[in-house]
Amino acid sequence: MKIILVGASGTLGSAIAERLGRRHDLVRVGRHSGDLQADITQPDSIRALFAKVGRFDALVSATGALAFAPVTELTQADFQVGLSSKLMGQVNLVLLGQAQASDGASFTLTSGIVSEHPIHQGSAAAMVNAGLEGFARGAAIELPRGQRLNVVSPTVVEESLAHYGDFFLGFKAIPVAEAARAYERSVEGRETGKTYRVW
Amino acid sequence: MKIILVGASGTLGSAIAERLGRRHDLVRVGRHSGDLQADITQPDSIRALFAKVGRFDALVSATGALAFAPVTELTQADFQVGLSSKLMGQVNLVLLGQAQASDGASFTLTSGIVSEHPIHQGSAAAMVNAGLEGFARGAAIELPRGQRLNVVSPTVVEESLAHYGDFFLGFKAIPVAEAARAYERSVEGRETGKTYRVW
Ligand SMILES: NC(=O)c1ccc[n+]([C@@H]2O[C@H](COP(=O)([O-])OP(=O)(O)OC[C@H]3O[C@@H](n4cnc5c(N)ncnc54)[C@H](OP(=O)(O)O)[C@@H]3O)[C@@H](O)[C@H]2O)c1
Ligand SMILES: NC(=O)c1ccc[n+]([C@@H]2O[C@H](COP(=O)([O-])OP(=O)(O)OC[C@H]3O[C@@H](n4cnc5c(N)ncnc54)[C@H](OP(=O)(O)O)[C@@H]3O)[C@@H](O)[C@H]2O)c1
Repeated sequence: MKIILVGASGTLGSAIAERLGRRHDLVRVGRHSGDLQADITQPDSIRALFAKVGRFDALVSATGALAFAPVTELTQADFQVGLSSKLMGQVNLVLLGQAQASDGASFTLTSGIVSEHPIHQGSAAAMVNAGLEGFARGAAIELPRGQRLNVVSPTVVEESLAHYGDFFLGFKAIPVAEAARAYERSVEGRETGKTYRVW
Repeated sequence: MKIILVGASGTLGSAIAERLGRRHDLVRVGRHSGDLQADITQPDSIRALFAKVGRFDALVSATGALAFAPVTELTQADFQVGLSSKLMGQVNLVLLGQAQASDGASFTLTSGIVSEHPIHQGSAAAMVNAGLEGFARGAAIELPRGQRLNVVSPTVVEESLAHYGDFFLGFKAIPVAEAARAYERSVEGRETGKTYRVW
């Protein structure tokens, strides 16, 4: 399969690349890194990416920014970060990619445990992650030509504890390779509209 | 209690007004109707509303627009309708209202069954409704001074079948008074971060 992997250079993305790269041809995408560059916050940049890639069999996205702050301090701009990047950025990979995706192609997006298990400063993140999972449930039933759409919701991964660990005190972290397995399940399986929780 | 009811003139809003109005003072709000006017898509209009109302003990929102279209046809503008109205419009009622809400005040927002049970043309609606529920889970744990936040997720109500019935063929509809009861439960109870499913 020809698989587009957005966020391939990241913590999750590198582990997904290691796993999916064993059996498939990957097109690694990042804003600045990878085989091709695209900025998911810009629909025109996504369109340009698909124009370059042509037909593909799967798209996996492990990217998307969020702003964290207490609900008493979150600004409109903070919400906009998550809305335009992690939420609509990933939604647009599906909306703008479906026409060029092959019959039976799959889309796999990334949410996160904060969707269901709140953390301090996480209300914008919870909104965005839950919205992604809702979109997948809603869109999965009407994607064309047997295309599928799932979301992977990892808990914090051990490799990110140095960055996010203070937000997840008391949470069990998982090795990033364990999260990567859920992306493989989404790509290789036949389910659609699911959220794969990895925690 | 002094309760702000946004969308008071609507199908859900009138039933909620009937129920909560028995025991409480309502400030009825609509874009064009009601005691006070505000447009939830405009943060400045929400700020002006709170400046007029002063201190309040509960806010109930039963409003918010959504665009419906197949996922193969949904445009950026279609998504923007739900994002700026039903999602961020309602989120902003909480963000901009918390400072003036009394100790222990409650916020109750409205999502809908499409969050969990997809319908044709409903992927933007599913995203927005699920996002609201995620926001409530996330924000509830850090609202100040004992304030609470819940979401009511009704199925289609019988009184709206003439408008939305074709989207919900085969779904069981409920009398709008039954949905109104869940708002009362949110306002009068002590729970927070919940989604009350009424179906
Ligand atoms: N790490 C965790 O523990 C964890 C757990 C649950 C959920 N998540 C979610 O998983 C996603 C990835 O997390 P991560 O920790 O792997 O991130 P990361 O290490 O920071 O990697 C981010 C990746 O996304 C790319 N990227 C950044 N902005 C982009 C944009 N606007 N357009 C296209 N690509 C862009 C980066 O490429 P460039 O460097 O080239 O820009 C990089 O490849 C995030 O949404 C995060 O919330 C992470
Ligand atoms: N009806 C159902 O079966 C059902 C089921 C589940 C969920 N819901 C959700 O519940 C919400 C209300 O539905 P409904 O059927 O009761 O709607 P509705 O009858 O159309 O009433 C909408 C109400 O919201 C007000 N409004 C509209 N736009 C506004 C804005 N930008 N700012 C402030 N107020 C505004 C209207 O006042 P003006 O006329 O003065 O503008 C009216 O009072 C919607 O989000 C809907 O998705 C409805």
